[in-house]
Amino acid sequence: MSPSQSAATGSREPDIASVDTVDAWIGAAIRPLGAEPVAIGEASGRVLAAAVRAGRPLPHRDRAALDGFAVTASHSIGAAAYNPLSVTGLAVAAGDPMPPDMDAVVPLGVAEAGGSHDVLLVEPVAAGANVEPEGVIAIAGALLAPVGTRLAPRHIGLLAAAGIAEVAVVGRPRVAIMLVRRLQGLEDSNGAMIGAAVRRDGGRAAAPVEVSGGRQDLAGALAAAEADLVLMIGGTGPGPDDHAVAALSDAGELAFHGVAMRPGETAGLGRTKSGIPVVLLPGGVAACLWSYEMVASRALRRLAGRGSDLPFDRRRMMLERKIVSAIGFTEICPVRFGAREDTVEPLPSFAEIGLMAAAAGDGFVIVSEGSEGHPPGAAVDVYLYESFPGDRQEKRAPR
Amino acid sequence: MSPSQSAATGSREPDIASVDTVDAWIGAAIRPLGAEPVAIGEASGRVLAAAVRAGRPLPHRDRAALDGFAVTASHSIGAAAYNPLSVTGLAVAAGDPMPPDMDAVVPLGVAEAGGSHDVLLVEPVAAGANVEPEGVIAIAGALLAPVGTRLAPRHIGLLAAAGIAEVAVVGRPRVAIMLVRRLQGLEDSNGAMIGAAVRRDGGRAAAPVEVSGGRQDLAGALAAAEADLVLMIGGTGPGPDDHAVAALSDAGELAFHGVAMRPGETAGLGRTKSGIPVVLLPGGVAACLWSYEMVASRALRRLAGRGSDLPFDRRRMMLERKIVSAIGFTEICPVRFGAREDTVEPLPSFAEIGLMAAAAGDGFVIVSEGSEGHPPGAAVDVYLYESFPGDRQEKRAPR
Repeated sequence: MSPSQSAATGSREPDIASVDTVDAWIGAAIRPLGAEPVAIGEASGRVLAAAVRAGRPLPHRDRAALDGFAVTASHSIGAAAYNPLSVTGLAVAAGDPMPPDMDAVVPLGVAEAGGSHDVLLVEPVAAGANVEPEGVIAIAGALLAPVGTRLAPRHIGLLAAAGIAEVAVVGRPRVAIMLVRRLQGLEDSNGAMIGAAVRRDGGRAAAPVEVSGGRQDLAGALAAAEADLVLMIGGTGPGPDDHAVAALSDAGELAFHGVAMRPGETAGLGRTKSGIPVVLLPGGVAACLWSYEMVASRALRRLAGRGSDLPFDRRRMMLERKIVSAIGFTEICPVRFGAREDTVEPLPSFAEIGLMAAAAGDGFVIVSEGSEGHPPGAAVDVYLYESFPGDRQEKRAPR
Repeated sequence: MSPSQSAATGSREPDIASVDTVDAWIGAAIRPLGAEPVAIGEASGRVLAAAVRAGRPLPHRDRAALDGFAVTASHSIGAAAYNPLSVTGLAVAAGDPMPPDMDAVVPLGVAEAGGSHDVLLVEPVAAGANVEPEGVIAIAGALLAPVGTRLAPRHIGLLAAAGIAEVAVVGRPRVAIMLVRRLQGLEDSNGAMIGAAVRRDGGRAAAPVEVSGGRQDLAGALAAAEADLVLMIGGTGPGPDDHAVAALSDAGELAFHGVAMRPGETAGLGRTKSGIPVVLLPGGVAACLWSYEMVASRALRRLAGRGSDLPFDRRRMMLERKIVSAIGFTEICPVRFGAREDTVEPLPSFAEIGLMAAAAGDGFVIVSEGSEGHPPGAAVDVYLYESFPGDRQEKRAPR
């Protein structure tokens, strides 16, 4: 099963690569896409391609800091409980611009509304009281959000409040998904799964396309791809009908075939002659998902300007039972929550029960190449499928 | 500023409500939407409205467990290094269905290809060797994913592999966003922000609609709403021009006006006569966001069948400096990462610097109603804006 057995494909393979080596190649060979402008209302989830600075002070004019009546402070001089003064007062809400010539706000409950535009004051008001002056939050030119920020609702609100209508964001990578149809009659279960994962990672996934035939047909499909990233699924093994690896050699550059990870060891990586990165994903469903997570999703996040780490929250937890792993392979070991809040227990491996190991689990542990595993009681980094603590709590309850 | 001062709106207000009271009302008054069928390829991110069970065994017929040659085990009896046997062998890849009458797989590298459909064996093969038998992962009827599962790529892959083409999921709530235009010339910065937050929480946000006029106009807009949830933004204060609260009373039921939280204390909650939940959000941008997060997003997640907790990862960290908070109010206190990996430091409040406090921060601490705050060195639950540890690391680096 090792890639060195794949002489049948006719191509000369480099040795099996470590996950770190593959990561380094992705970091060096793939650059984030260029910037594109988007309206602020459409920018949530996108990554800033340039820092955003305030084009004007924030607030950009003096405004009321709370609900009440705007007044002119100098008119209140002399007001007292025994000498109530009636002054011109205009109702304002927090955030309203201050009316001309008015420089203080008297809170509701302190002033008493007199006539239609009058309030009765029983104490003097200082100029500037309860007024948020122009520029107090940010001066013009202040940094509102640095380059690389992944815009969330809070950023959208701040930028919109600063009068910014459009921002420059990293483009959304177009991802072509090719399903190698090696046998008639086999159902595909990878296209929908990988399409969902691509969308999760900020990519635009075109509908999966089936490609069939031999080495030349596959190479032709790769050469004709119009995308920022190609994922070719299936045909990565060493069998005589597996042509994906040789096809990538023909269509451009095969950087790696064989990644020292389980599941997913027959994954491959390279690029076409026109420079489009290509990830070859094994056709077995668990191997397909994990080679996506460990290789393809890093390439995609790199294109999209996102961070390189896996999109799962990581937490330090304690193993209830040992995990055994083969030296020389980065192994993905499924776990589920244990008896205590800070413990996890290993589940049967992906090799044994396929994606049931993921569906039944709460997360996974990555055992690195150089490790034989971990003893019971060891503290390990657990990657959690659900980022939301509440969902985890509810999931725990029925056990 | 307390809602009891809002007699000017003409409605009789209930007392200010605690966040817990509001949560309990949402849990009791709002039910998840009904189920709808979706194709498995479109189901990622949706919440299962019913458990999914295997309709057939998984795998649903015997299949090859690895790449190699399928053979008939009984034909290999007598094979030895000194007595190689040539038997019929068909190349198979891991996951391929076993050819008829063949019951074992000889790995590549162990068997040698002879003629076009022959392999040379140097040892006997056991029946069932390297074959994944029908039903070994799941028998027909086995639970593949429980009700309430939020479908991720791993579930999509498992269900597709089990031959499931369509699933029943909780409907996506339609959310109407109404912007109360109280003053001409004021720019809105809330619509884009809240629209982004609604989409984040699984809702379908229609484009924000401006409503203006008095109590009757606003009540009319609420009564005419066609949605699963209405968010009315602005006009929630106690001023004479604030009509949102009275309008909700007129249009149905005002359950709460005034929530004991900061920012956001003038938020309101209720429902129309036709039973549509309505959340009134203050117009100030920080108060708008946080009353959305603390009240509206819970209502939305309840409709969407998601968990009730905030959609932020929570982590136990240590405060570098004290946080002071008013007793009687649940306070949202912005923080950013501190000098050590497990520490945070408080930032100026939302009242002081608006959403800059969120944009500059890494998360927030919720100080409950009964607490005056926390001393330096206290361990607190920090809600983190970014769920991804890698993004956090990169964000820390430039400091």
